[in-house]
Amino acid sequence: MPPQRATLLQVAQRAGVSRSTASFVLTGRHKDMRISEDARQRVLRAAQELDYRPNLMARSLRTKVTKTVALVSDTIASEAYAGRVIQGSLAAAVAHGHLLFIGETEGDPVVEEKLISDFLDRQVDGFLYASMFTRNIRLPKLLHGQKVVLLNCLTRGAHPAVVPDELTAGLDAARTLLDAGHRAGIYLVGHTRDQVFASRERLAGIKEGLGDAGVRLAGTIDCNWWPDSAYDAVCRALDDGLTPQALICLNDRVALGAYQALREAGLRIPDDVSVISFDDSDLAAWLRPQLTSIALPHYELGWRAIETLLGQPGEPAVQRLPMPVRRRASIGRPPAE
Amino acid sequence: MPPQRATLLQVAQRAGVSRSTASFVLTGRHKDMRISEDARQRVLRAAQELDYRPNLMARSLRTKVTKTVALVSDTIASEAYAGRVIQGSLAAAVAHGHLLFIGETEGDPVVEEKLISDFLDRQVDGFLYASMFTRNIRLPKLLHGQKVVLLNCLTRGAHPAVVPDELTAGLDAARTLLDAGHRAGIYLVGHTRDQVFASRERLAGIKEGLGDAGVRLAGTIDCNWWPDSAYDAVCRALDDGLTPQALICLNDRVALGAYQALREAGLRIPDDVSVISFDDSDLAAWLRPQLTSIALPHYELGWRAIETLLGQPGEPAVQRLPMPVRRRASIGRPPAE
Repeated sequence: MPPQRATLLQVAQRAGVSRSTASFVLTGRHKDMRISEDARQRVLRAAQELDYRPNLMARSLRTKVTKTVALVSDTIASEAYAGRVIQGSLAAAVAHGHLLFIGETEGDPVVEEKLISDFLDRQVDGFLYASMFTRNIRLPKLLHGQKVVLLNCLTRGAHPAVVPDELTAGLDAARTLLDAGHRAGIYLVGHTRDQVFASRERLAGIKEGLGDAGVRLAGTIDCNWWPDSAYDAVCRALDDGLTPQALICLNDRVALGAYQALREAGLRIPDDVSVISFDDSDLAAWLRPQLTSIALPHYELGWRAIETLLGQPGEPAVQRLPMPVRRRASIGRPPAE
Repeated sequence: MPPQRATLLQVAQRAGVSRSTASFVLTGRHKDMRISEDARQRVLRAAQELDYRPNLMARSLRTKVTKTVALVSDTIASEAYAGRVIQGSLAAAVAHGHLLFIGETEGDPVVEEKLISDFLDRQVDGFLYASMFTRNIRLPKLLHGQKVVLLNCLTRGAHPAVVPDELTAGLDAARTLLDAGHRAGIYLVGHTRDQVFASRERLAGIKEGLGDAGVRLAGTIDCNWWPDSAYDAVCRALDDGLTPQALICLNDRVALGAYQALREAGLRIPDDVSVISFDDSDLAAWLRPQLTSIALPHYELGWRAIETLLGQPGEPAVQRLPMPVRRRASIGRPPAE
């Protein structure tokens, strides 16, 4: 059990004042209550000597503000970089004098309801409702009428949301290859599904960016967004005689698989084939050659979501955060004809 | 602002009973207080109809139990797998009906003191004090006398601690290579520092394991625990004429660098050189060939730490959790002489 706290009564007794006098002093109401400066000093000294800690929980009952917020997420750990989202949220919460609860629902509505209900019982001041993959969600009923910011997800309602600007990221991927002189033999690696926000928006941006220069994707190498699937698919495509000049990989794990396949086929990056990717995970800097990748702004998503929850009102409903291009060594000029 | 809650008084009025009767029913004291079954049913129905939510904060003031715990960590995100520690802690906390606060100190004692103080103000029932790298710590003064479990760190005091069993992991690394027939040309890759728990214990285990079979490490390839440093160091060693038969890499990132260097030198894994590593990060399964690695039990560390904090007493002071060997394709028999 925690050590016994000094009570307000003990502070009052030590200071030789009434309990209410001590309370007025310690809640900053000494002026209204015309407490003498001498009494005020005695109370403050006594509080310090006894290491008096005002009972925030009791105070919260009066003010109805607990200075806590809850981050409710479908998954905390399945994506290595969730840690950065939490870190950004934490830093911003602390900057606003709030503490952060976290909870994981594993996408299970029953778990979610119980969890949100538990947070409501503890009267959190607001919620971040987060998805580790950007997607459209239906806000749980219990959160209707609560102060909520959506983190990395969107909903039909009027709730503020913070998501990465995947469309511009796609445009930037296209422009980066165009700037290096690529005009043909540009393949997308990774399957695209309309219902997956990242793939839909990235693809739209890529097509628009290439289209502006009169260039079209040469094709798509279809695979899951994982190294082994990408490896298999790129190996097969090369075996079938595909001669890509540039690969746009839909994430860094896909790029890892593509690297492995290109190497086995004796193709050099970037001399024979250029590679660009999305996410900018640790992996991007670890590959040889280092991978040019367009960064998911995990930390900023967390930070901005808390800022939107606790900061000044006036942000637009949906904030799209920039995804910076991390230029490394995987893009070269197209091989001479 | 959150919607107005139904109060106990409203429940009582709807049920046609007194406020105390409603309170006795809703806190399970109807038997002691001889409340009629009919009245009890009316109160329960009214509570349900009004979506009455007992004010846990008010209740906590009476019981002095908030059903919250705080995870205080030096860093949340710099290691990709911190997410698994948080996930394990979360799952166990929820299993015990508790919610989890998290806080990050960045190793700054001033931030740490403020954070712990804020948690104490919210009267958390206990603390996990976590380090993302296993190490010896000095418990902050504010936590003396509190209910604390150390997660991935140790201290001189009598506080319970949960750490990975790195010594046995080292033994297992040695035995895995011995079982494959390796007796010579076994090199350690990665620097070892006595003050770094993981490297000290892993090395001690490796030496003991090899020593039991009359085998000695052929040498150490010194480098930081990062891919580029390992790549450079292994390239240099091979250039200097080193002919390793097996590499024990002190983590998976080091193994990635070693893979890159071996490949450039035209050495095949595992035909020419076997590789074993520690951590079992995602990377291990993504490399080609897949890497045999000894897993850090991140999820279990989080889970067990909460169990120790909230579960039955009686665990030993320091619990060392097993690090399982994940056997994959990077270990073969030594090349024929």
